[in-house]
Amino acid sequence: MTRYEQLAAQIRQQIEDNIWQVGDRLPSLRESVKQSGLSLMTVVQAYQLLESQGWIAARPQSGYYVARRNTNFAAAKGGKGLHLNENVEINASIFGVLQACKDPDIVPFGSAFPEPALLDEPKLGKTLASVARRLARFNTTANLPPGNEQLRRNIAQRYASQGIHVAPDEIVITAGAMESLVLSLQSVTQPGDWVVIESPAFYGSLQAIERLKLKAIAIKTDPLFGIDLDALEDIAAKYPIKACWLMTHYQNPLGGTMPPANKKRLVEILNKNQIVLIEDDVYGELYFGNQQPIPAKALDVKGNFFHCSSFSKCLAPGYRVGWVAAGKHASKIQHLQMMSTVSASVPTQLAIAEYLTQGGYDNHLRKLRQTMEQRQHQMLGAIAQYMPSSVKVNTPKGGYFLWLEFEPPFNAIHLYQLALKEGISIAPGSMFSTSDQFNHAFRLNASFTWNEQLEQAMKTLGRLCHSLIAEKRG
Amino acid sequence: MTRYEQLAAQIRQQIEDNIWQVGDRLPSLRESVKQSGLSLMTVVQAYQLLESQGWIAARPQSGYYVARRNTNFAAAKGGKGLHLNENVEINASIFGVLQACKDPDIVPFGSAFPEPALLDEPKLGKTLASVARRLARFNTTANLPPGNEQLRRNIAQRYASQGIHVAPDEIVITAGAMESLVLSLQSVTQPGDWVVIESPAFYGSLQAIERLKLKAIAIKTDPLFGIDLDALEDIAAKYPIKACWLMTHYQNPLGGTMPPANKKRLVEILNKNQIVLIEDDVYGELYFGNQQPIPAKALDVKGNFFHCSSFSKCLAPGYRVGWVAAGKHASKIQHLQMMSTVSASVPTQLAIAEYLTQGGYDNHLRKLRQTMEQRQHQMLGAIAQYMPSSVKVNTPKGGYFLWLEFEPPFNAIHLYQLALKEGISIAPGSMFSTSDQFNHAFRLNASFTWNEQLEQAMKTLGRLCHSLIAEKRG
Repeated sequence: MTRYEQLAAQIRQQIEDNIWQVGDRLPSLRESVKQSGLSLMTVVQAYQLLESQGWIAARPQSGYYVARRNTNFAAAKGGKGLHLNENVEINASIFGVLQACKDPDIVPFGSAFPEPALLDEPKLGKTLASVARRLARFNTTANLPPGNEQLRRNIAQRYASQGIHVAPDEIVITAGAMESLVLSLQSVTQPGDWVVIESPAFYGSLQAIERLKLKAIAIKTDPLFGIDLDALEDIAAKYPIKACWLMTHYQNPLGGTMPPANKKRLVEILNKNQIVLIEDDVYGELYFGNQQPIPAKALDVKGNFFHCSSFSKCLAPGYRVGWVAAGKHASKIQHLQMMSTVSASVPTQLAIAEYLTQGGYDNHLRKLRQTMEQRQHQMLGAIAQYMPSSVKVNTPKGGYFLWLEFEPPFNAIHLYQLALKEGISIAPGSMFSTSDQFNHAFRLNASFTWNEQLEQAMKTLGRLCHSLIAEKRG
Repeated sequence: MTRYEQLAAQIRQQIEDNIWQVGDRLPSLRESVKQSGLSLMTVVQAYQLLESQGWIAARPQSGYYVARRNTNFAAAKGGKGLHLNENVEINASIFGVLQACKDPDIVPFGSAFPEPALLDEPKLGKTLASVARRLARFNTTANLPPGNEQLRRNIAQRYASQGIHVAPDEIVITAGAMESLVLSLQSVTQPGDWVVIESPAFYGSLQAIERLKLKAIAIKTDPLFGIDLDALEDIAAKYPIKACWLMTHYQNPLGGTMPPANKKRLVEILNKNQIVLIEDDVYGELYFGNQQPIPAKALDVKGNFFHCSSFSKCLAPGYRVGWVAAGKHASKIQHLQMMSTVSASVPTQLAIAEYLTQGGYDNHLRKLRQTMEQRQHQMLGAIAQYMPSSVKVNTPKGGYFLWLEFEPPFNAIHLYQLALKEGISIAPGSMFSTSDQFNHAFRLNASFTWNEQLEQAMKTLGRLCHSLIAEKRG
């Protein structure tokens, strides 16, 4: 951390500890220079960082004040109990929601992808161009599964920097995380097997389960702390569960992150019951603050867990490059991939390998995280301003999704339809479950550059929510 | 056709009609100039073309002679009868065979990919570089299934040039043909359904069937004319077949091509029995001669057939860009792809779209086909020289595979093991069936630049075959 980041972190901690409360005037720049012994430039940078993150606000001619933060919404509740599915059949509307985001005239709050401009890394494009010029011939054979060797070493080095030992040979490069997740699930299940997922869950897991003809138990998942471990322990004792697919960090759609103690207990429950973990960690790099959370995979001593991620949420969705750290299952995954896509695209694998080798990815990620945190604050501000006060929403500590709940029987599918007519997409809660228990909730993508169009879209969404609630009462 | 190509075609026809026989001296260049009224340069080019294709050979100080052609092998027999599989389980050795081809020290006669240098299209690398420089930001969202619009139009135009009407909206861009084939099969079947494949068949179809838990009937397939239609008709009447996956052109591994009349009858049988055709046409562009064969898809008036292909055999295997012309199933394919790989790699899609738009692909293909035909002749020459005379082999009219058979109980798996010890890979016949009826056969990849190492490898293979046959006798 640089000095100004240290100072910003210190002030942020003071705000979190209520040393400074909302509306309090912070020490002036000159006062802060005196107190800290730092240069004026350093203090200015620290204040600007805090302002960009929404912690403080400048008032002209007056100074910096602690901003009204948007963390005082009522907490979202997430899922209830269990939901058993012997036949998972997915709402066909999911595809409609995703396709709607392709239309450039639609405000894409329902999108699963971060704003493209946010990931714009001109250096990566240049690297791809350089790789393409130098290597007109992209030898597929040499990059057959498990994939480009340099890239697997780059990824292993990133694990090592977190203190996690993953050998390059355990890593298989895939066409994005979606392929690595589906191949992982397939490699340890047979049709008819039981698996555990979260409730609500990433719709991709629901569709993979449908495709592989598995039976699913969706377990109540907390918007703050992730899957309910008591329920999991109970279910693991009663059902012959083969695999558990979940997101430990910034869970999609709720945004929760499992605390380290929960991860430890999760791993104990799974190991005791011989259940394989498929850890979907595609948002793990998008943590706010200074500490990257450690995945549950770090506790996997037997090489029995899958850790799946990609470069799609942080760098280059269109490149379709992801991976799985598959431990002892790596060879099975390679076999399956050979019959799925043969290999990931070779030029994009090589470009990312070279980009990572050159360095600079961590700098990009640092900026990306700061921007995403700032945009989350902006979106929370708009929710506070335009949404009915009965809205419930949490403040995830990473990622770019916000999960909004109203009191049932609020109909988010109806909201989706009404909003689409006004040129706005949202992701209704029904996408994330085969039950109807999330029909009163929806997910917003908070990664977009704030502008007048987005402000108006939030205003419109707010108006629609008000009218839906009024209708219900009337 | 240019003038020299016309002259070459004319001489070739004369050779095929036995006007000139093997060993005959052709008219000298000057005589030919007189007879044809063409320029000396044109005649020289024609003779060089015929020489490169193996039709004639130059003898120093003497002139051009009709070459000993290698079409007088005994014909390979291919598959026998039917093979019903209620549970398709694939020989794990397939993966070993494919992986062995990654080792640069191994002569890759067992490889499924054409020699990389053969596809080296420097223009495509430059196009990718240019696309990457201009478009640092590859918007996945805009290229979500069905894939890049320009590329789908390019492909539709290529169909149109064959007189086949396929709308761009029926085309879905995939991560290579493997993905398009598997998604096609998945979109029209449920676990437990019956499907028909060829015997022997591309191992990818066997693995897809295993993965999707289907039941398979493998139908005797002729090394010259493809699947046995009498057997198909019989089976279609007796079993509730959902889909028929086959290769109409340069079938892998046998090399046969269905004549137009067979395709017509195939389509009639399938339509009558409501069976969907999944036409794997990845070698369709690699025809020798002047006439591109027309796929069975051209006869599909109901939009009920899948036509799957890619740029992997002709241009850029590593780019992982393929497609399916899916007719009325296009929307289902898009849904499935969303949960398989989300989309094909965007930079490589855009690069191929731009490359096709610029023109020149057909020139590249023309050269590629000529080279492949020439290399097939070279490989056939080496087979004639080094293999036991009991070898049976056909001369496919396209593609780059040769299928060799010996009298059973010749053990090609044993040959594979012995050859691998000598640094040579082959593809044993057992890879292409779940039965043991092809254990006496193997496939060679004939696409490699002929050199001393390949000559030695063929010599070694011949020696091993001789000793395996002698052992059997002894």
